[in-house]
Amino acid sequence: MKRVYLDNNATTMMAPEAYEAMLPFFCEKYGNPNSLHQFGIESAPALRKAMDQLYEGLGANDLDDVIVTSCATESNNWILKGIYFDKILNGEKDHIITTAVEHPAIGHTCSFLERLGVKVTRLDVNNEGLIDPDELRDFITDKTALVSVMWANNETGAIFPIKQLADIAHERGVLFHTDAVQAVGKIKINLSEIDVDFLSFSAHKFHGPKGIGGLYIKKGQMLTSLLHGGEHMGGRRSGTLNTPYIVAMGEALELANKFLDMENSHVRRLRDMLEDEILTISDVSVVGKRQNRVPNTILASIKGVEGEAMLWDLNKAGIAASTGSACASESLESNPIMEAIGADKDLAHTALRLSLSRFNTQEEIEYAANEIKKAVKRLRAISSSFAYAPKWHKSGL
Amino acid sequence: MKRVYLDNNATTMMAPEAYEAMLPFFCEKYGNPNSLHQFGIESAPALRKAMDQLYEGLGANDLDDVIVTSCATESNNWILKGIYFDKILNGEKDHIITTAVEHPAIGHTCSFLERLGVKVTRLDVNNEGLIDPDELRDFITDKTALVSVMWANNETGAIFPIKQLADIAHERGVLFHTDAVQAVGKIKINLSEIDVDFLSFSAHKFHGPKGIGGLYIKKGQMLTSLLHGGEHMGGRRSGTLNTPYIVAMGEALELANKFLDMENSHVRRLRDMLEDEILTISDVSVVGKRQNRVPNTILASIKGVEGEAMLWDLNKAGIAASTGSACASESLESNPIMEAIGADKDLAHTALRLSLSRFNTQEEIEYAANEIKKAVKRLRAISSSFAYAPKWHKSGL
Repeated sequence: MKRVYLDNNATTMMAPEAYEAMLPFFCEKYGNPNSLHQFGIESAPALRKAMDQLYEGLGANDLDDVIVTSCATESNNWILKGIYFDKILNGEKDHIITTAVEHPAIGHTCSFLERLGVKVTRLDVNNEGLIDPDELRDFITDKTALVSVMWANNETGAIFPIKQLADIAHERGVLFHTDAVQAVGKIKINLSEIDVDFLSFSAHKFHGPKGIGGLYIKKGQMLTSLLHGGEHMGGRRSGTLNTPYIVAMGEALELANKFLDMENSHVRRLRDMLEDEILTISDVSVVGKRQNRVPNTILASIKGVEGEAMLWDLNKAGIAASTGSACASESLESNPIMEAIGADKDLAHTALRLSLSRFNTQEEIEYAANEIKKAVKRLRAISSSFAYAPKWHKSGL
Repeated sequence: MKRVYLDNNATTMMAPEAYEAMLPFFCEKYGNPNSLHQFGIESAPALRKAMDQLYEGLGANDLDDVIVTSCATESNNWILKGIYFDKILNGEKDHIITTAVEHPAIGHTCSFLERLGVKVTRLDVNNEGLIDPDELRDFITDKTALVSVMWANNETGAIFPIKQLADIAHERGVLFHTDAVQAVGKIKINLSEIDVDFLSFSAHKFHGPKGIGGLYIKKGQMLTSLLHGGEHMGGRRSGTLNTPYIVAMGEALELANKFLDMENSHVRRLRDMLEDEILTISDVSVVGKRQNRVPNTILASIKGVEGEAMLWDLNKAGIAASTGSACASESLESNPIMEAIGADKDLAHTALRLSLSRFNTQEEIEYAANEIKKAVKRLRAISSSFAYAPKWHKSGL
């Protein structure tokens, strides 16, 4: 059975090199890195190397903190709740600005804070899935504690102008956080050039393991811990160090950055090829300009084709895709980003997200393009809503 | 070089079976379990099996929730901060009762909550490291939101009477949580017989991987989430599922329970043998009665021998031990439990914790006993404080 994995924005295959690097730390070098004996100490060189890889991979300064967390969901909860405890609960501030298209780890955490009385502004996006920087400027008040905007959108791949947005926040003395989960490993992230205060990332989006991520904290920024306890990670994040995964994450980030050129050539070329093929189908649109998206992502809307039905057909052909974020896929609601960009309810149910990686081949992409066309033909032929549009019905495509 | 690992309360070697069980989920079955395609779905049977193993391993009821977290530190932060948001921030309650000897994930989180105005009572322990249940009864007020008492102490191995303590809390309508990190896998935990509302556990203390644990939540108990987001784990804990580690944790717990008899015979016999040998040294004491400790732990105090110096000597002989919790080992303070049980400052610096596992052999224990005796002799001979006591000085032991 053919297996073509085009759901890399949901999660990725671990890079074999990262996998190999972590294996010695389960049953051989298994000591607690905090322990004062050989079993603990022997993991120190690998941990140091991994932390260096993370700093290097983000362009972080030695005096910044890169703190390992259990996932970007933890990082995002940490920054929002940390700000709540540091600046809002004491009455100093009362307001957070974010966008309408953040991942639920930001969106739902903001909803939780709203129930505690925090004011949250969610900036709308245009039909390309982007916010208006001027609008951000307008919404900042003296009581704004934080601006949090994702670096790249998980569903459209749209890249937000983080430098510009961070500068706007800083002009007004407001802290800036970015959820960079879908940007790290896909485009160059150099924090020595882009001045953000906090940045979340997740290993399993760049071919590291699931269940580990991090929060970058700029030099000198305080942030109340989300996990108190044994004061690991310089006192900022408690919990016994997950040595194997830290080693794997460091390795995976170094690899991802090494392959950035390939991401921008090979992956982009395959993505564009697939997108071109999909756009030959009638009544199909893709969200956002290519040059402003991460190189691996397509969010297409295929009129008359229910996204779930399309996934079913593709899955039968061994192709993994998505109707949107896997984090929302337990519910059969319409794609929230399609609604956010102003698509009508009908179209919002037709979303198909295809997200590639450096492990995809041209043969796989040609196969996928063909199977997508076959699925559209079949599904439009049996679509009750599509039957009302004879023009489409006749051609099938 | 000989390698004898006697620091299993800090962390454990992964059980080879648990290690093998998780390997396919990194580079082969790597899909996001929430995804609606073969890559996601194919991990479902293993995840279901693992969750069954966790329920079975704790004696949980189908209607209870066993929620996977990134570690017991997360579980402990979750229960305390969840209670803060659910019952304290709104003014309904204002008080938490715990003990003076909890792990920092409870102790430091309580200190954080105290800074937010929560009243925290820390019950003192006697010279066996145990609290007085009557004292718990006395401290409960109408404003008490939670009682949190560890099941077994990480340093002494002392087992707390959880059933009795939970019953006392419940008589007064107060919720009961136990940090069972050092109990799970060492003694039988059957939650169908012991009525706790919340229980924290951590895989790496029972030969599972570091970086994963859980929180048991009794049927019907609400608890505000610590990690908001994609609403994984039935909406209670967000974050992409760490499939390999969940599989490994389930396997490790089933194995640990399968080996409980061995823990109680083989491990207990080796522990007692080691303890007997250590007690042949003059001026040595061990904290707590054997029959009331988990079968693998010894906390000894060796007069005139600085704990750190002892670790150094043992480490040179390839033996891993501890002066106490690895979570506190970055600081060179005296052992807090030794202080809590009323040892004077001098003795508090002489703690040596030895914690065994089912992977230790009799030969290792004989070797360790011998090396400990050699180290005591050497260190007492050069000890300035010990030199003042000619009786000890002469014999060396």
